[in-house]
Amino acid sequence: MSTIFQELETYKNFDELARDVLDLAKEILPNQLIYISSISDTQQVILKISNETTSIVATEGIMLNLNDSICRGIDFEKKQPLIYEKILEESSLADLKNGLEKANIKSYLGIPISFVNGDKFGTLCAVNDEEHHFDDKSINLLQRIVRMFSYYLDLERVAYKDSLTNLYNRRYLSKFFEDQQETEGWIFFLDLDGFKKVNDVHGHDAGDMVLEEVALRLQTFANAHPNALAFRLGGDEFVIHFSHASDIKKMSRLAEQVLENLTIWDANYQLSTSIGIAMYPGDYAITLKTLLKNADYALNLAKASGKNTYKFFEL
Amino acid sequence: MSTIFQELETYKNFDELARDVLDLAKEILPNQLIYISSISDTQQVILKISNETTSIVATEGIMLNLNDSICRGIDFEKKQPLIYEKILEESSLADLKNGLEKANIKSYLGIPISFVNGDKFGTLCAVNDEEHHFDDKSINLLQRIVRMFSYYLDLERVAYKDSLTNLYNRRYLSKFFEDQQETEGWIFFLDLDGFKKVNDVHGHDAGDMVLEEVALRLQTFANAHPNALAFRLGGDEFVIHFSHASDIKKMSRLAEQVLENLTIWDANYQLSTSIGIAMYPGDYAITLKTLLKNADYALNLAKASGKNTYKFFEL
Repeated sequence: MSTIFQELETYKNFDELARDVLDLAKEILPNQLIYISSISDTQQVILKISNETTSIVATEGIMLNLNDSICRGIDFEKKQPLIYEKILEESSLADLKNGLEKANIKSYLGIPISFVNGDKFGTLCAVNDEEHHFDDKSINLLQRIVRMFSYYLDLERVAYKDSLTNLYNRRYLSKFFEDQQETEGWIFFLDLDGFKKVNDVHGHDAGDMVLEEVALRLQTFANAHPNALAFRLGGDEFVIHFSHASDIKKMSRLAEQVLENLTIWDANYQLSTSIGIAMYPGDYAITLKTLLKNADYALNLAKASGKNTYKFFEL
Repeated sequence: MSTIFQELETYKNFDELARDVLDLAKEILPNQLIYISSISDTQQVILKISNETTSIVATEGIMLNLNDSICRGIDFEKKQPLIYEKILEESSLADLKNGLEKANIKSYLGIPISFVNGDKFGTLCAVNDEEHHFDDKSINLLQRIVRMFSYYLDLERVAYKDSLTNLYNRRYLSKFFEDQQETEGWIFFLDLDGFKKVNDVHGHDAGDMVLEEVALRLQTFANAHPNALAFRLGGDEFVIHFSHASDIKKMSRLAEQVLENLTIWDANYQLSTSIGIAMYPGDYAITLKTLLKNADYALNLAKASGKNTYKFFEL
């Protein structure tokens, strides 16, 4: 599964906008060290730090285990700020006390940054080498800056997402594949059987709903498989990418799972799915274009052999 | 041609974000009346105003002729702030002096707001009932707020734009058509001839470039015709909407122009375009779905009669 850190590399204007956020935040809390971080399930990267006015030492680009970070307490569901006005007295942070003393951090304000759809991004934080009372007005203004920033983040993401289904798009697949070519991986090239008829008979709205439902099921499948990522190429064409070595037996089982997930539809629709499967050996031996062509060839074999099935591309 | 005012109605979170902008701006310039406006070629609408702390009277929602507004001097190309520290002494505003005195405006700061691609949106302005010196730091912070806001605006727009071609998408056509149904109008339903072959033979990247080029030519055509607006429905299907009464002779000439614009291609491509034309009488007599179906029927007639031509739907 792709992490937020990987996605971040595609953001074109991040440096500029993050700097804007820090400068505005600095206007509101002038005596704090302010930083923006990105957070995955287990890790945190410090992305940008304001010009320092405190004795706290911090470095852009370092990665921490989330468990070793003050930000571990941020609740992304509740979207509330996390405040420690006297951090060394916090019993919940007892295990971090040594580190906090070394870093000279005595107070902390952390505001969760999420994408507009709720996905976690990271935090905007203010830390100080003195105990500090954060007033409501300042916190409120920082939250507004973060909200505006989250729209910017969404916009960056939009370039790599399919607007109908919210899956990653072909553009992101190209970008993503560049980082994957070193080691072996596999792709499923999916094409719905009977989709054109849904559009023609039931209209484009019905067709769109089918595509959204397919995307949802593929996303659920990908979420359950740590090395799988789902893409929509366009129309009724989808790709699942697996970034691990495997064999035909294992990939067949995965393909059967995917087909099963895409079997049940409104009886009026008569839909099923065909899959072409292709592997790449790593070592940059093959381009994405060729890989997709191989998978498309296998897909056509699957269609020709009666649809609702999968075929492997064999050299 | 659709105006920015029409587009604004589709923005979901505008009120909330505009309020954020005003509150942040108010933090930077506490004693000013601050407002956000939207500007078309000839008019300005005051969209949001900060809670007043001055004696200046202003109202949300009013529309001005741009020529009667201080903001007429904003240069959207240069993206520079416009500053009048002693506005009644500005000779370039002599014709507005009466109005400014009545409104009790003595100083003005206007910052242009554009979309990320450079399209004009409007202004963030600060006016005061006293002469005022605007310091560089405040101006710079306001510009950063505006920059962040422009990403939000782009995101709203993205929902109604096709990401490949930047034309309005089918979703926006539905929205747009709701406002058009009262009076007569026409649509061209375009479909490229030979496009599938471009994709199959030259690859998706070549296909995408063709679609981008088609969009560019249709946009140029629409820009030259005040009542025309271009949309991409998906794949190689495009629509041009004309919001005016007309007759078959005039629409034929327009169709010929469009076809001519889409004639010349790289010789390897063998591309042309077919168009189906349908009109709607106004008075909400027909749904968009039916209108598109009619136009699609005419499009099929055009395809059947040898392609690279247009046909009218006749009841």
